[in-house]
Amino acid sequence: MAQRISIYLAKAPSRAEGLARALLLVKERIRTCSVCCNLSEEDPCRLCRAGSRDENLLCVVESPLDVLALERSGFRGRYHVLMGVLSPLDGIGPKDLRIEELMRRIKNGSSGVREVIVATNPTVEGEATASYLATLLKPFGIRVMRIAYGISLGTEIEYADEATLSHALEGRREML
Amino acid sequence: MAQRISIYLAKAPSRAEGLARALLLVKERIRTCSVCCNLSEEDPCRLCRAGSRDENLLCVVESPLDVLALERSGFRGRYHVLMGVLSPLDGIGPKDLRIEELMRRIKNGSSGVREVIVATNPTVEGEATASYLATLLKPFGIRVMRIAYGISLGTEIEYADEATLSHALEGRREML
Repeated sequence: MAQRISIYLAKAPSRAEGLARALLLVKERIRTCSVCCNLSEEDPCRLCRAGSRDENLLCVVESPLDVLALERSGFRGRYHVLMGVLSPLDGIGPKDLRIEELMRRIKNGSSGVREVIVATNPTVEGEATASYLATLLKPFGIRVMRIAYGISLGTEIEYADEATLSHALEGRREML
Repeated sequence: MAQRISIYLAKAPSRAEGLARALLLVKERIRTCSVCCNLSEEDPCRLCRAGSRDENLLCVVESPLDVLALERSGFRGRYHVLMGVLSPLDGIGPKDLRIEELMRRIKNGSSGVREVIVATNPTVEGEATASYLATLLKPFGIRVMRIAYGISLGTEIEYADEATLSHALEGRREML
């Protein structure tokens, strides 16, 4: 990939200049939203300023890319971006994530959050982070939910891994 | 793949003979289990004869390969194999599947089934088949459940498709 980009830029030097300028702008303009900790050009970011979103529902994610994916899925609550997950082996503890900011948001009654959906990745670190957050949040009377595990659309059952199938069976829902 | 197998067999002709014999045995010995409609050497099959399985729970699947996958996942109820899914475009209707056998099993009170889990694939045909079965089964006071949709373990949220994410959010469960 890097090779292809370098050759493309060598062929079109004017593009190289534009790209360089854009890279400098990233450093200059992109900052952290003081509400949700997502990256943004404005503070608060566009999503935090939007009036039409569900204030009761807060979705906690690992990274800004997860926000983009959830927006495509049609989620219309608020977000909080942790900017990572707990990973003791890599020396990443609660202080390295945006957990303090999350707790401040919850403690601040005016935020109106009643339900937190933890949408960290279904990895060991993501699960550990989800449990940690649940322990922190529950004393505040907040419902802490985990996104559903199961089979992804388009997957075939015969190729699904055991753990996923086991979750899909356990989480079965009544057909109405 | 076919090429690799042919070359392997050409190199070891004695293996070819063994394989030929095994292929003939398939035709001779493999039959359909008269209870669950799975393929088996015995009738009823090993899973239908096992006394230690949960009689209340019946998992309906498309193919024998799905039974193998669900066995690996630790499911310990009974199975029913449809041997396909409804697919009007391919001319496959209810009569081409093992639905009559399923209904006979349910109507026969001695089977003890209280809950049917429909584990057809999450494709258009799989969903249509699931809905069709739900309509047939409900009048018998059977709970009809669908396996859970959601993110598979090991998937990253940022790469999950919108429909899967939307199901994962909708099916969220409280963290205890």
